[in-house]
Amino acid sequence: MGNGAESDAGGPSPGVLRSYVGGRWQRGAGDGAPVCDAVTGAEVARVSTEGIDMAAALDHGRRVGGPALRELTFHQRAALLKALGSHLREHRDELYALSARTGATRGDSKFDVDGGIGVLLAYASKGKRELPNDTVYVDGDVEPLSKGGTFVARHVASPLRGVAVQINAFNFPVWGPLEKLAPAFLAGMPSLIKPASQSAYLTEKLVDLIVESGILPEGSVQLVCGSAGDLLDHVTEQDVVSFTGSADTARKLRSHPAIIRGAVRFNAEADSLNCSILGPDATPGTAEFDLYVDQLVTEMTVKAGQKCTAIRRAFVPETLLGDVAEAARQRLAKVTVGDPASADMGALVSLEQREEVRRSLKALQSAATVVYGDPEHVAVDGADAERGAFLSPVLLSGDPERAEPHEVEAFGPVSTLLPYTSTEQVVEFAARGKGSLVGSVVTGDADFAREVVLGAAPWHGRLLVLDAEDARESTGHGSPMPQLVHGGPGRAGGGEEMGGIRGVLHHMQRTAVQASPAALTAVTGRWTQGAPRTTTDVHPFRKSLAALRVGDAVVAGPRTVTAEDVAHFAEFTGDTFYAHTDEAAAAENPLFGGIVAHGYLVVSIAAGLFVSPEPGPVLANYGLENLRFLTPVKPGDALTVTLTCKQITPRESADYGEVRWDADVTNADGDSVAKYDVLTLVAKEAAA
Amino acid sequence: MGNGAESDAGGPSPGVLRSYVGGRWQRGAGDGAPVCDAVTGAEVARVSTEGIDMAAALDHGRRVGGPALRELTFHQRAALLKALGSHLREHRDELYALSARTGATRGDSKFDVDGGIGVLLAYASKGKRELPNDTVYVDGDVEPLSKGGTFVARHVASPLRGVAVQINAFNFPVWGPLEKLAPAFLAGMPSLIKPASQSAYLTEKLVDLIVESGILPEGSVQLVCGSAGDLLDHVTEQDVVSFTGSADTARKLRSHPAIIRGAVRFNAEADSLNCSILGPDATPGTAEFDLYVDQLVTEMTVKAGQKCTAIRRAFVPETLLGDVAEAARQRLAKVTVGDPASADMGALVSLEQREEVRRSLKALQSAATVVYGDPEHVAVDGADAERGAFLSPVLLSGDPERAEPHEVEAFGPVSTLLPYTSTEQVVEFAARGKGSLVGSVVTGDADFAREVVLGAAPWHGRLLVLDAEDARESTGHGSPMPQLVHGGPGRAGGGEEMGGIRGVLHHMQRTAVQASPAALTAVTGRWTQGAPRTTTDVHPFRKSLAALRVGDAVVAGPRTVTAEDVAHFAEFTGDTFYAHTDEAAAAENPLFGGIVAHGYLVVSIAAGLFVSPEPGPVLANYGLENLRFLTPVKPGDALTVTLTCKQITPRESADYGEVRWDADVTNADGDSVAKYDVLTLVAKEAAA
Repeated sequence: MGNGAESDAGGPSPGVLRSYVGGRWQRGAGDGAPVCDAVTGAEVARVSTEGIDMAAALDHGRRVGGPALRELTFHQRAALLKALGSHLREHRDELYALSARTGATRGDSKFDVDGGIGVLLAYASKGKRELPNDTVYVDGDVEPLSKGGTFVARHVASPLRGVAVQINAFNFPVWGPLEKLAPAFLAGMPSLIKPASQSAYLTEKLVDLIVESGILPEGSVQLVCGSAGDLLDHVTEQDVVSFTGSADTARKLRSHPAIIRGAVRFNAEADSLNCSILGPDATPGTAEFDLYVDQLVTEMTVKAGQKCTAIRRAFVPETLLGDVAEAARQRLAKVTVGDPASADMGALVSLEQREEVRRSLKALQSAATVVYGDPEHVAVDGADAERGAFLSPVLLSGDPERAEPHEVEAFGPVSTLLPYTSTEQVVEFAARGKGSLVGSVVTGDADFAREVVLGAAPWHGRLLVLDAEDARESTGHGSPMPQLVHGGPGRAGGGEEMGGIRGVLHHMQRTAVQASPAALTAVTGRWTQGAPRTTTDVHPFRKSLAALRVGDAVVAGPRTVTAEDVAHFAEFTGDTFYAHTDEAAAAENPLFGGIVAHGYLVVSIAAGLFVSPEPGPVLANYGLENLRFLTPVKPGDALTVTLTCKQITPRESADYGEVRWDADVTNADGDSVAKYDVLTLVAKEAAA
Repeated sequence: MGNGAESDAGGPSPGVLRSYVGGRWQRGAGDGAPVCDAVTGAEVARVSTEGIDMAAALDHGRRVGGPALRELTFHQRAALLKALGSHLREHRDELYALSARTGATRGDSKFDVDGGIGVLLAYASKGKRELPNDTVYVDGDVEPLSKGGTFVARHVASPLRGVAVQINAFNFPVWGPLEKLAPAFLAGMPSLIKPASQSAYLTEKLVDLIVESGILPEGSVQLVCGSAGDLLDHVTEQDVVSFTGSADTARKLRSHPAIIRGAVRFNAEADSLNCSILGPDATPGTAEFDLYVDQLVTEMTVKAGQKCTAIRRAFVPETLLGDVAEAARQRLAKVTVGDPASADMGALVSLEQREEVRRSLKALQSAATVVYGDPEHVAVDGADAERGAFLSPVLLSGDPERAEPHEVEAFGPVSTLLPYTSTEQVVEFAARGKGSLVGSVVTGDADFAREVVLGAAPWHGRLLVLDAEDARESTGHGSPMPQLVHGGPGRAGGGEEMGGIRGVLHHMQRTAVQASPAALTAVTGRWTQGAPRTTTDVHPFRKSLAALRVGDAVVAGPRTVTAEDVAHFAEFTGDTFYAHTDEAAAAENPLFGGIVAHGYLVVSIAAGLFVSPEPGPVLANYGLENLRFLTPVKPGDALTVTLTCKQITPRESADYGEVRWDADVTNADGDSVAKYDVLTLVAKEAAA
């Protein structure tokens, strides 16, 4: 991707940060607005997008990036994400260095940088395992629409033909762009990244590394550092706008005329009043009590509490309030604040942000008192307390019946302890946040966990149950995971990101395709029940992937299942279930009314019929899916099996691939007695 | 549901139509606005919602309807939908009679009434087959989140705790409410139906039948006939607003302050400029040519073209334009217009609507000429041409390079023929509609079908491939199906309704639950790998559904698989694949490196180990799922199987249910050699 000649050297540029649009690095005109080091207050860079043609950037993504991506299969896109992840990992020290200037400790930087790389690798892995090596994604099963079977349907998902416009928050300048890029890229949609100005220099470096690597197709990633200008005026019904930031800004963007006009997909992740609930069982001395307090302090101090997933409302049983407050106070007293290179907690991203947090703290204090910390003063280690945006962790204790604790978010190292007296009550309190990204329940009582999780789930995108069993391996309250949805209803933005392949599908249009089985097979590339089969003298097991075609089939049999076969199979396998061995008892069975053959015998005989024994391209049968026994097989029944090639998935990095076969075992009346999919590994080329 | 004493007798009321809110029938104050018969112009009823407390209606749904629904399992809700469908079918003549007053022919009325009943029954069937008999829905598989297996996750979906506000269009006063109600109800969410005023008297009758039946829980269905008043001001983050109607109104509602503020789920289906594309192969004399012209005329005349799915843009190869125009002209000339009881085509819903269509026709005529029909005059059979809203079918022929044919929708019996010259071009023309509900491709050429479908899919919610094979059974271009998504991007509203269970999930919040396997088992009610198992002296196959618990398990074995077993199984079943029979050849296999046991032998032996042979509550093994062979089994390997009860699904209307078992076959090293789910039918109670 990109053109080395046009690209400046890495690192934050003096003066105005560069944007990467239309296939080249460009600087906005004018002096731009200054961006300052969170620790020293010194100017790091300036941002301006003056003169940058946003409509042209979108057009470049649509005309160049989209087509290049759509030429690749899902597996090919996954392989590029994996390569990119490895590349960035090699360069992560460069990112850590800049990250410190945002006020981040080394741990915070790993959370951001390694977390982002982790998302790329997770999506690469999911894409390879859960998506086809194809450009067409089928969603769900074939839907029969007619009695005669000539009219059927299936859903396909296609990448939208626009650009995924990704407006990120200041707090995760690496993870934020990457967690949005990965699913969009895998879907086949180009990204346009707009970082928040306060930390845009780090995202500029990230995109510089991406462009320099040449790994991704040109046009699949663009960057706009600074104001979005008139960018949103140009979005259309094929674009996607994803936003992470404040609930207020989310509302503004959601009602943008262009988004409303085009019914543009708009996905928001907004900061929310996330809760953590201590179970009544978790009294002092229990593992869960300590886990609760440790997690609370961690969530307050990681990234100096500037996480949209941080705990803002800490619900504890009324009787444990004093114990929790005291334990938290002791732990917080040990937290050092100062130079991110050495202290436990660094600075907020900017002095402006600190003022904003202090304003929110004032509002909270009308319904809460300070348990720990001083909003106006903090001892600072190894840094200038005047110029850096340092703030003490502040733990409050509040009244849960007041509105403020559920509505006012202090986006910094701030949480409020809130007492509750019953399970029902704490579930209701949790809902007063009007929608949160995440909540946690810390308890060793599975019934309490179930009641709280099912009660609070409608208001949450993610819920963590933390206990002594999962604590060691838990990734914690504050960490969104690429496998899981990230987003919550209402105040949290009403969106959903990641969630594995779900996040890929957010960038695709789902379309129901109604057709004859033959036409549906042609459209989807998957053989559909009712479509023609190709049977020739060549057994399909003798065909390599290169020669095999969807619809290639073999019909084999009949073989009559005898009473002796059933009796012998029972004796040989030990499966002496009465329906196979005891005529009188089997006659009483409401479903069989007499001796029936084992289902396992039926599929074993079918394999004996359809197999082509000699060495050849078929390497192994690695599984079966969706096996259903549909009609009982009685001794004397003659079985025929039809095996049809349904789907072919070559592997990108092996000399074989997967072939899914439709197996249909029928009796002499033509009734299906068993239907299933047989999964095999088949060589790409015939052996020499 | 409801209280007979408070309910008036059925049929449209004299004066103001009733609303059903807060558990009783109420009439809005004042004289209301008149609603007139489409055919005679006579007043049918009046509508007013003056004085009806919309906030109280939402509150009633939330406090009464929601809790009542959430107490039911998915299967119980499905059974109620089925009962309601049967009840309405018995009363459909009452609905037909009123339907005629909207201008609908008997065929149109069946489309609306029977179509709506069909959606109820389809959802009842899907709910029973595809959802658990439980109140907790799990979405997707367990996601491992840690190496040690103590930290895992799974998504659950919970019904939103608000009300599904359903704002319907005038053209389907029965189908519209029912296609929105069915998925909401199945999800566990109460509905508040707001019909369009022009045909609200028919929806009032529908809801009267629903309430009178007493089948649905009180609060699960409410009705507001007339203006929505301040209804939307009161929606919150737990409500859903679904709208069907014009693109302009969709935009207004989407930007409503309360919807923006709460990130309220808003789903719109808007009329769109749907296309139908004739393939170049479909020349006169082919079946597809006739199918295309017949479908075009049908879509123009059914419901007098007042269908959001009707064909507005009829793309034909340039060389076939004259032939299509002539064939359509001949068919249209046979269409009679007039009294819906006898004519082929009835009236538009109102005189105002006819004026609106005439205005749109004028706009279209700037880029198109009339091929058939006169926008200002039509011969009317058996009705008063002055008082009824009759309009001739009007077929235009237009210039596809002009904007109007892609932008101006005449919501009546109007279509425009548009020529194209290449596949690429017609795909691009289709996209100029900026998002459509549906498109169709009429062709016998599977390659053309594939190219058009995959090219046009990003702009469509549904695409129909019509050909000689599926024509007899096809439900046609204009019919949304409950199994398939209904909705399209951009101008079509950007929404998605129905689509089977997808439509149910639109009414639920998806939440990732992270926990230890034990806690996740407690929350979801499904046994999770890693959670404790219960093994007692009682074999779990000896337990009825009433006694069986998730986690009940049996460990059986070991049995050593001998070389003789493998050789015998090969000979007995006929599965003589070389990897089981030929040591030298098997040694060459890159995956095995020597003789391996058949996968079918492994699962057969496992069944022999875990079975409890005597008659008992387990009635049958009806299938297997997700079988994977993970480690080759060599002669001499000793196999052990662990079978664990994973999920219990009692059937509502049978004395047995389904039990899903986790099967894990391990070798002497403890490695899993095969993992799968065993599906059984188990009696609810032990036999006497």
